[in-house]
This record gives sequence, structure tokens and C-alpha cells, in this order.
Amino acid sequence: MKPFLPTPPFLSPLAGIGFNLRKVTVPKGFVPARRFTALAPSAPRTYAFAKYQPRKNQPTKMTTTATTLKGEPLDKAALESLLRRRMFYTPSFEIYGGVSGLYDYGPPGCSLQANIVDLWRKHFILEEDMLEVDCTVLTPHDVLKTSGHVDKFADWMCKDPKNGEILRADHFVEDVLESRLKGNKEARGEQVEEKEEDPKKKKKKSKNHAAIKLDDAVVQEYEEVLAQIDNYSGEQLGELIKKYDLRNPTTDVQPSPPVAFNLMFQTSIGPSSNLPGYLRPETAQGQFLNFAKLLEFNTGQMPFASASIGKSYRNEISPRAGLLRVREFLMAEIEHFVDPEGHKKHHRFHEVENIELELLDRHTQLSGKTTTKRMAIGQAVRDGLVDNETLGYFLARIHLFLKKIGVDQTKIRFRQHMANEMAHYACDCWDAELLTSGGWVECVGCADRSAYDLSVHAKKTGAPLIVRQRLDEPRVIEEWEVDIEKKKFGPFYKKDGRAIEAAIMATTQEERGKLAKEMEETGKAFLAVPGVGDGKVEISKDLLAIRWQKRVENIREYTPNVIEPSFGIGRILYSLIEHNYWTRASEGGDEARGVLSFPPAVAPTKVLIVPLSSHKDFAPAVRKLSQKLRSAGLSSRVDDSSASIGKRYSRNDELGTPFGITVDFQTVKDDTITLRERDSTRQVRAEEDRIIEAIKALVEGSKTWKDIESELPLFEGQQDVEVPVR
Amino acid sequence: MKPFLPTPPFLSPLAGIGFNLRKVTVPKGFVPARRFTALAPSAPRTYAFAKYQPRKNQPTKMTTTATTLKGEPLDKAALESLLRRRMFYTPSFEIYGGVSGLYDYGPPGCSLQANIVDLWRKHFILEEDMLEVDCTVLTPHDVLKTSGHVDKFADWMCKDPKNGEILRADHFVEDVLESRLKGNKEARGEQVEEKEEDPKKKKKKSKNHAAIKLDDAVVQEYEEVLAQIDNYSGEQLGELIKKYDLRNPTTDVQPSPPVAFNLMFQTSIGPSSNLPGYLRPETAQGQFLNFAKLLEFNTGQMPFASASIGKSYRNEISPRAGLLRVREFLMAEIEHFVDPEGHKKHHRFHEVENIELELLDRHTQLSGKTTTKRMAIGQAVRDGLVDNETLGYFLARIHLFLKKIGVDQTKIRFRQHMANEMAHYACDCWDAELLTSGGWVECVGCADRSAYDLSVHAKKTGAPLIVRQRLDEPRVIEEWEVDIEKKKFGPFYKKDGRAIEAAIMATTQEERGKLAKEMEETGKAFLAVPGVGDGKVEISKDLLAIRWQKRVENIREYTPNVIEPSFGIGRILYSLIEHNYWTRASEGGDEARGVLSFPPAVAPTKVLIVPLSSHKDFAPAVRKLSQKLRSAGLSSRVDDSSASIGKRYSRNDELGTPFGITVDFQTVKDDTITLRERDSTRQVRAEEDRIIEAIKALVEGSKTWKDIESELPLFEGQQDVEVPVR
Repeated sequence: MKPFLPTPPFLSPLAGIGFNLRKVTVPKGFVPARRFTALAPSAPRTYAFAKYQPRKNQPTKMTTTATTLKGEPLDKAALESLLRRRMFYTPSFEIYGGVSGLYDYGPPGCSLQANIVDLWRKHFILEEDMLEVDCTVLTPHDVLKTSGHVDKFADWMCKDPKNGEILRADHFVEDVLESRLKGNKEARGEQVEEKEEDPKKKKKKSKNHAAIKLDDAVVQEYEEVLAQIDNYSGEQLGELIKKYDLRNPTTDVQPSPPVAFNLMFQTSIGPSSNLPGYLRPETAQGQFLNFAKLLEFNTGQMPFASASIGKSYRNEISPRAGLLRVREFLMAEIEHFVDPEGHKKHHRFHEVENIELELLDRHTQLSGKTTTKRMAIGQAVRDGLVDNETLGYFLARIHLFLKKIGVDQTKIRFRQHMANEMAHYACDCWDAELLTSGGWVECVGCADRSAYDLSVHAKKTGAPLIVRQRLDEPRVIEEWEVDIEKKKFGPFYKKDGRAIEAAIMATTQEERGKLAKEMEETGKAFLAVPGVGDGKVEISKDLLAIRWQKRVENIREYTPNVIEPSFGIGRILYSLIEHNYWTRASEGGDEARGVLSFPPAVAPTKVLIVPLSSHKDFAPAVRKLSQKLRSAGLSSRVDDSSASIGKRYSRNDELGTPFGITVDFQTVKDDTITLRERDSTRQVRAEEDRIIEAIKALVEGSKTWKDIESELPLFEGQQDVEVPVR
Repeated sequence: MKPFLPTPPFLSPLAGIGFNLRKVTVPKGFVPARRFTALAPSAPRTYAFAKYQPRKNQPTKMTTTATTLKGEPLDKAALESLLRRRMFYTPSFEIYGGVSGLYDYGPPGCSLQANIVDLWRKHFILEEDMLEVDCTVLTPHDVLKTSGHVDKFADWMCKDPKNGEILRADHFVEDVLESRLKGNKEARGEQVEEKEEDPKKKKKKSKNHAAIKLDDAVVQEYEEVLAQIDNYSGEQLGELIKKYDLRNPTTDVQPSPPVAFNLMFQTSIGPSSNLPGYLRPETAQGQFLNFAKLLEFNTGQMPFASASIGKSYRNEISPRAGLLRVREFLMAEIEHFVDPEGHKKHHRFHEVENIELELLDRHTQLSGKTTTKRMAIGQAVRDGLVDNETLGYFLARIHLFLKKIGVDQTKIRFRQHMANEMAHYACDCWDAELLTSGGWVECVGCADRSAYDLSVHAKKTGAPLIVRQRLDEPRVIEEWEVDIEKKKFGPFYKKDGRAIEAAIMATTQEERGKLAKEMEETGKAFLAVPGVGDGKVEISKDLLAIRWQKRVENIREYTPNVIEPSFGIGRILYSLIEHNYWTRASEGGDEARGVLSFPPAVAPTKVLIVPLSSHKDFAPAVRKLSQKLRSAGLSSRVDDSSASIGKRYSRNDELGTPFGITVDFQTVKDDTITLRERDSTRQVRAEEDRIIEAIKALVEGSKTWKDIESELPLFEGQQDVEVPVR
């Protein structure tokens, strides 16, 4: 047992990064999209191609900038203040100064997350009888070595020799060049577009952000570099730093050449420190390793899917952008195992074929555009735009899921990976991207991983990660077969025996035919075996035979291909918040009154119960109501604080609670209550049981608020106005 | 920035282990319980006292050995084979040789776990309006240093100098002594009781397990050591190894002296390796750190509880015993924050006070017995057996939860921690223990953690983790107050100023009274200040005044106390499986036909749909039925394999599916289906919608199978008999 001494990753740069790169011609005038890729890469990262996104908005029907639900510009500071105030999420360990890239979810965030996961489980796992598994986060080194993560799952980083600051190389180059371009514009008196960024970064940049004019040629060069920033190897990034004398604004010093930094968290399992391990960067590997058992559980039937919901970990070099780039995150991943023969048809494809998606294919991107095509998924598969039915089926199902939880339909697109952006084994990959204040964010990846993962693990371990299919009709195979006389062959060739045997077994059918003919005619033949003798070896009839054989196969063995939809729950959750946020200002109300219009099914709490005051007369009615709501499976909270009713409802608009019930003096008399709808603030009044029934129908989605208004009498109260109570 | 080089833990023994130990007198004839403690220690482990458990069964009403649900001896091998076959759980990374202490949950285990968690959430969080949070697993060093885990969360381990094997010291001493006692019995021709153990260990032991007679005095000495095995410090364990010449059976060599091994998994956060971190060993710390925000979220109201469901990690030295001791596990923890004044009353205590629990208090244990007392929790609190109402309330709620999910009521007890078994700050602690083939297993801990955690974090960070309570009536306080003339005081005492000021401020009211009197009489006084001058310092009227002052307080500040119920979900899940397992042999049926009689609410799948054959005529009816069940929120699976109906039902008995529906030729004609109940195998037949309604009522618990039999016509089919269907 070789002892394992964990080395600080910075001191042990890993090799093999930047594989698979090709120089690409970059259309002018384009800058890379904010790189919120690789939240859930279906494979080790490739960094192969920049994503093109126009700096200016394209005139399409799709929304292109972050707006509120009502289409007004998004005031991100106001939203962030709301999220902090209502404890949707909060920096972890804040009283200890915090750790970047780590966030805790408070009660509403936690509940929102649980509801999204619950809907996900119903929409995918239950709807399609998927086999859910829960595998460990701790993963031994060998597994991730085989999968390629140990060698390839890395980013480039530089170190500032003066203050020891660690910089992510591509981000650093990008930041400095963008800052110079901005300085140039300022020097020429042009208007400078401000990007959203954290104050810390802004401060740093301002130092470097001198208004200095640049030559037109330099501007063009910088823009070209920026357009393909995802496309450089570490060495190339190092060259750019030298060539343009890029300096860390904090110290005015050039950072060290980039080294690879593996993004997995390392640890050591067990007391003897001899089992190095990592925290998994994706849930997929655990599913692959269990393939044989899952297939057996499924009584050998194909196709089937496994699914997993759990935490994954990536040691980001310099996380920023809140929930969009974090070091610990919840993923939901599906591995759909399918026979590669038969064009990966899907038996339920007809159910979704008419669903229209906004598609941004790779050809459009190559031509330097980001215009999406609205197209039925059936058409897209028929046109060959989407590789196969199974992939298409999942794209449509992903779309339906995102719609169900309340994603804005004008802020979603499916972007195809560029040919060299994908992992080398993938045959097609599409990301569901959601538009936020941070640009288009990859929230779901949907890749065809082919047979790669099962093959490498099977090869490494010898485990049969295959399907044995009984053929309906036996297959008759006729071909040249080699039959070696082991007893003579070995002693004859001695130490070269193994190499010669391998060379013989590696011959093609055509070559075997020739060899057989030659041996039949002359009793011997010559075979090229590099490294043995002079490279040509004589083989004879005495040692082996090559015969035209017929054989009948009843069983077909194959390694399934994998279609992998992979969801970053935190990114979806954050995008969902932005998509559902607005303020009452847009209808002439109070600017400060934010609303989160989550669909009832995902809203953290369904009902707010507001007694007119905290007077003890209301207590029994409130208790009875809570109990009834609980029995109906509806989560509720009571707010009997001394704040005005208006203020209490306002607080709950910010929490996204869709319904409010007021308990007043009338309730005590006749058991009627008022029901308020969050978005319209309109109210109806009826007997308690009828109101609960109405809420149930609204949450389940079987009725709309309009239906309820037509069924129950409207109530024209004053309760949304700030009237002090007591 | 100090670079952090993670050191393999074995090379860096941590100090501070074995604190708080007291020598205890051990009653004869007792051996320690299997130590399944500390799954969810509410604090760093203490190892203070052995748990007593008689080797022979005590004659009580409680079950004392592992049995099936029908009271027959549990065949653990048969159960394990079932669990493997049905993929409830499986060793992680098995195709890579596995990693001990890590398990993956397959589809039924995963679903069982999700259902337990779902019921937990409803029973605790929703029922009591708890504030759920989801905090990160990654935790920086400083947080766990403050909480005491870095220094104290450790086990003792030894190394075999010959083969490098790592042994957990207490387990090692226990194993060798037990083996010698067994050898003694064999040598005397007595019957030897075999414990359940893994084959690997058995093999090792057999080497050491020579039939050698021991003196009676030696036998007694060994038994006394075993009875207090949890009670030894590392040094003491080392002495025992030397004294009795305990050798590793594998090598026949004495292991090295024990060193402390911290049980937390170490890692490093971020690229610069300067932020050492750990995987959390409990979810509690994240909740404590968020206390101030949670209190604000709760609009300042006390008491309230937070709750968290998530993975925690412990790097066990040598995990064994399957799911009962693992390195990665799911926990559900509640932190109930309560005002320490007012005897920790609970406003809902009256709802549970008549619930009877089996209590094993510390006095009974001290007297060497394990007889439980059945007692209403109200009585236990009144008698002072359970410290306070809030603690008692949670014990009763834990009991109700365990009952609800299907824990055998004769296999549950609440065991109080011994005075020195608790963490030093806890004032009372009870474990809910479940009886399994591994003995009594701690599945839920319920501790009063006092104000410890909030206090240490507040002290370390300066964050105000306190409650500011507006007093209904202002409090008038009269006392001696010191008023220092800063301008003169500092310059007068120069470098000693600080120490002298601290000494003055540390004086008691009584001392201040004396000093004030002295100063009034003589204008000066003398104060002991160690380390300054000759240890006595003169203070005078010019520099400070000590006055009898009156002050009115409107606000009371206090640090809440914490009651912490902490659930090990994996242990509960495993115990639940054992408690609900039986075979048809007990009713004269097939021995091999195992059944898992989970209550419908936790059963992994609710309904199995069995078409008579895979004939395509049945497909539409099956599809319609699945869809209807899904809409009703009932999970189902179709088994249309070619196995006989009896075999298919048998498979699902093993999966614990409570209901089965047969779709036959009659169904196609008149839409009627048969419903089979798993435990009785009896069937009723009715129209589809009525059957679905019946299942819904059964799963929700509003009706029993008896009710259904009285409502719907019985069906006397042949379908549980092995009739081959094509």
C-alpha cells in the first residue's frame, strides 16, 4: 500500500488540460457569453469554444435583458436586499467572515428548493418509473481517475508573486482586457456600458481602468481574444499575459504562468491515509457503477433510466455571482440507458413531438448569431438538428418541467454545444439556458454521453457493464476464425509468442482471408509484427489454422449508450426567483413593495393566516384553520404580530406566499374567512371549508383564481391598505 | 497567509481526548452494550461510561432479542440476502472492491428513505412551524475549532508495527479479551454463544481463539474491563494492551500505543490551500451560526425551533455492521431554542403528557440493571426523572414518530445518559434505542445542550447570539457600580492600567462594598492585582468612584438554551427493516418467501400492478390504471414480466409493497380489478375507481384492511399460487 500524502493542489499542477482544442475563427464584434457553463458538465471540461453572444441585443421575440415579471428593468440591488431580508439564502459562516462560494438556505429558500425537487421527482422519476439511487459523495481516487476527472477536471490559475493572490487565468485576462477597452471608450468620450459586478471587483478594476486611447488594431485584437477566451490552453493564456503585459490591478504586477488546478475537493478515507478520495463533482459516476445491479433490478429490461438527487462539489478558484457559481450544490441527474442500435427511438416521443422550443443550434452560433429558431421538437429531430428521439424527448420534458415550476417562457432557450465544446465522446449536447441579470445561464445540460462511461469502468474493473439481449431470431455469422494450437505455439515462439498472438488476433477479415489462402497454398505465411525480429514473422499450418466458420448467436451483447439530463437546482432556483420578481411600483403602488409571484405549487408556503389582531378571541379559529390546512396538505404560517394587516401581507408578498386568509370578528361569528390572492390582491369571502377547497384546487392547478372569483363572492375590504390595527 | 499543508491524521495525534473521565465501579456480570452510540452525539464524544446490558435476557415485557415481526428468531443471513437481491442498499464502489462504511441506496432503499424523511418533515417541521435551513457540509476549521470538534471529536487507534494494520483501540482490546473468554469456556466444555460478525473478522479471530483455560480471577478481571470498555483513556487502553499482552491475531504482535484519531474528514477550501476545512460531523453547527437571522425571521419571537435534514460525515476507524456504522449518513436534527428561565415549559406539553414510554433511567443503570419502567411522560417530568417539559415533549414526539413509521413497540426504549457519559455542558440526555440483531442501537439522541454552542460562537466571533426581550415590567436594579476617570487613570498607571482596570471590574458586589467604604473613609484602598508590582495596588478617589446606583432595565438579554433531537435516518431505516421482516414459513408457507410489512405510508412503492400476462390486450387498462394512481399521488410499478403471478407477488412482498392489483380478462370487459393485501394475501374485487379510493384511504391511514374487506366483496382467486402463466 503506497502511503498517500495529500499535497496542496497549487503545488501539484495536473497535466492533461486543454486537450481537444482547435483554433477557431472568431466572428468579429462578438464577445463571449458570461461563462456560467459547466455547472453540470456531463464530462470533464473541455474549454473548446467560446459561446458567442452579441454585445447589443438582437431583435428577436425573446427577452434579451433581465427584467422583472412585468417587463420592467430589474433592480438587482432591491431584489438582493429582499432575498437577504427574507432569508432566502445567506452566506454560510457569515459570523466567521464567510467563505466564498458557500451559501445556506433559510426557511423560504429551503422550502422553495424542496418544492422544486418534489416536482422534479414527480415529473421525471414517478412519471417515467425511473430507478432512483442515492450514492455516496465520498468517492475513491480510482473511480475518478478512470472517469477522467483526476486528469482533466481542472481550471487554469495564476498566482500574484507579490501578494500571493490566486487568479483564475481566463477570468483575469478577460477582466484586464475588458477594462482596457472600457478605458479606451472613455478616452474617446464614448458611453461605457456597466456590467453588474460585485463592489470588491469594481474597486480593484477602477485602479486599472485608466482612460487611455488604444489603436484600432489593438482594440480589434483584444476583441478577438475576448471572443475566444474559453478556447485557450494554459500555455496560451500565459503567452497572452506576457504579450499584453497584463498586470494584477491590486499590485501592478504580472502574475505567474498559469498552472492547472483540479476542481475536486480532496480528502482521505479511513485512518491509514492510504485511500485518497474526492467529493464527487457530479452524481453520475455512482449511477454508472451500479448499472449491472440496476439492470437486474429492472428484470433485465431495456431501456431504463436511473436518477439521483444530491449534493456535488467543485472547488471553484474564485467563485462570484452568488448562487450561480458555488462550491457545494444540489444536482438532479438522470442517466437514461438506451440501446445504441435502432436510432435511439423513444416510445413516448409522440407525446411531445409538437412541443415548440427556442433552439440555438451550432450552425447559427458558428455564423456568429444568437437568433433562436422556434421549432417543434419533432421537426428538429426529423431535420437532424437534434440527434435522436430520446435526446429530443428529454429536451421537451425539460422544457415542460421548467414551465411547470414557473420559469419565464421568454427567457429560456436551448443552446447546442459546438462540435469541439463537447466532451470528445459525446455525440450531441444541448443546454437549457435561462436569462438572468448574469446573462444566459446554463441550468440544465442534456448530453448524449454515448457508451463512454460504462466502457471505461468496465475496462478498468472487468465488471460486465453490458446488456445481454436474447435475440428473437438467432444470428448466423460466417467469418474467418483463427484457431491457435496453444501447446505448440507458445514453446515455438517463446518470448515473442504473446506479441505474435496479439498481432494475429488483430488482423481484419480481409487479411485473414489472404493469410488463409497463402497458408493453404504454401503451408505458411508472413505476418507483420512490429518489434519482433525484423518485423516480419513466419506462421505455419502446424501452429495455427485459419478457417471460414459458421456460428449461431442467440444472445447479443452491447454496452448501452447514455442520455444524461443534468439539473443544477440552485441555478434554477435563483433564475426562478428573478423571473418571478416584480414590485408594486409597476402598477402605481409602492416601489419598495416587492412581490415574488411563484406558482402555488413551488411557493415556499401556500397560505398566510392573518388574525385581525393578536387578541385571544381569534386563537381558537386560527388553530382550527391551521389544523385543517395541514390535513389538506397545505403548508401555512400564522402571522399574529402587531404589524398592520397591510404590512403583514406585504411581508408575505416578498416571501411569495400566494394566498392569505384573514380571520376577523365575523369569522368568530359565522366561520367565514376572506381569501386574498397575492398577485391581484383581490379577495373573496366564504365559509372556511369552501375556502380550503378553493386553495387546494389552486395549488393543484385544477382551478385558476379567475375560476374562484366566479364561484365565490368578492370581498371589498380595506385590508391591503396600511390601517393600523389596535 | 500561512500555507496549509494537510497532514495525514495518523501523524498528528490530537490532544484533549479522554476528558471528563471518572473511574466507576462496575457491577459484575455485565458486559457493555454493543457501542452503537455516538451516531449523532450532541457534542464531542466523551467515552465516559459503559452502557450496561445483561448477557442473558431479562424477564420483562419488552423483547430482548432480535426477532421477526411474528416473534420468531431472525435469520439475519436470509434477510441480508433479500436486501441485496432487492437492492435496498449495496456497498458503494463494489466493482472497484468497495470502501468500508460507504453504502449506496438502491431504488427501494431510496424510496423508503424519502418516505421516512417526508413523514419526519410533516411530523416535526410542518406540525410545529419549525424553520428549516439547509447549510453547507463544507465547514471551515475555525467553526469546528470553536465548537470543540477539532480537539475532542476523536477515537483512539493503534497500529500494528508488522503489517501496518490500523485498529480501533477499544474494539481491539474488547475483541481479544472476548476471544480469550470464549477460549476459556471452550476449554471448560461450556457452550459458547456466537455473536453476529462478518466472515473476515471471524477468520481472524479463529486464529486467536485457542481453547485455553483461565483462572477465575483472570476471568473476573477481563469481565470488569469489558464492562467499562467505553470508559478508558488512550493511555489506559495502552496499559491494558501491555498488561495482558494483547496481540493482533493476524500477526501475533502487540500494536503500538493508542493515538487519538480525529473523526472528521479534512479538506482544503479554495485554490490557495490556506483555508483548511472539514466535512461537518453534524448539521447542528450551521443552525447555531444562523441563530440571529432565524430569530429575526421569526420576528423575534421565542421559543422557536430550526431543523435541518442533510448528510454528515465521520471517518470511522474500522466501520463494520452495515448501515449501523457508516462514514457518510443522513441526519435530521432539530434545535429548539428556549428561554432558560421558566423551567423550560412547553405550551403543547399537555397534548402528550399521558403518552407512556419505556424509560431506562440512569439510577437503574447505575444499579446494574436494564429493566425499563413504563411511565407516562407527564409523570416522568413531574418526578424529575426527565429534566423539563420541553425535553419530555420531544421524547414523546419522537416516540410518536417512530410508532408512525412502523417501529416495533416492543423493541424501543429511551435510555438516559449517565451523568458522566454526557457532554460536560449538557444537563440531561436521552437516547431512543431500537433493538436489532446488533443489540440496542441508538437511533435518536435527545439532549439539552444548554447555552453552550451559542455562547462559544458568540464569544469567538463577537456576534450577538442572544435574545433581547422587552420586559413587561421594567426591572429596577440597585448595585455597586465602578466609574473610572479614564483621563487620569490611564496616564497614572501607565502600562499596568489595563490589568488594574480588569481587576477592578472583576470585583464582586461584596468586594466593591468594602472598597467603597474604605475609600470613603481613607480616600484610598488596596486591591490585589497579581503580576503588578508586589501584587497589591493602591487605588484612590481621584482615579475612580464606587457608588451605590439604581438603574432601570426595560430589556432583558439572554442566551437561549437548546434542546436537540437528532435522528440518524440510516439507523432508523435499517431497524425498521428488521422490525418489519418475517417469512411465510411462520404461517406454514414457504420459508424462502420473505415479507417486509412496512406501513403503507413508508412503503417504497404503494401498489404493484400485475397484468395476467404481457398480452397486448391488457396494456390500455394497465396504462389507464397507472395514470389514475399517479394522479391520486400513489406510487405504483407494473410487473408485466413473464414470471407467474405468484412469483411476481412474492417479489413484491420482499419489496414491502402493501397492495397488488391484478388486471385480467374480466378487467378488460367490466373495469373491475382485484386488490390484494400483502400481509394477509387476501383479495377484494371491485370497480377500478372504488379500489383506488380504498388504496388512498389505506395509505392515508383513514381505513384499515378490515374496513375494506367489510365494504368490498372478497375475491377467492388462485393468484397467490404458483400457476405458470405462459
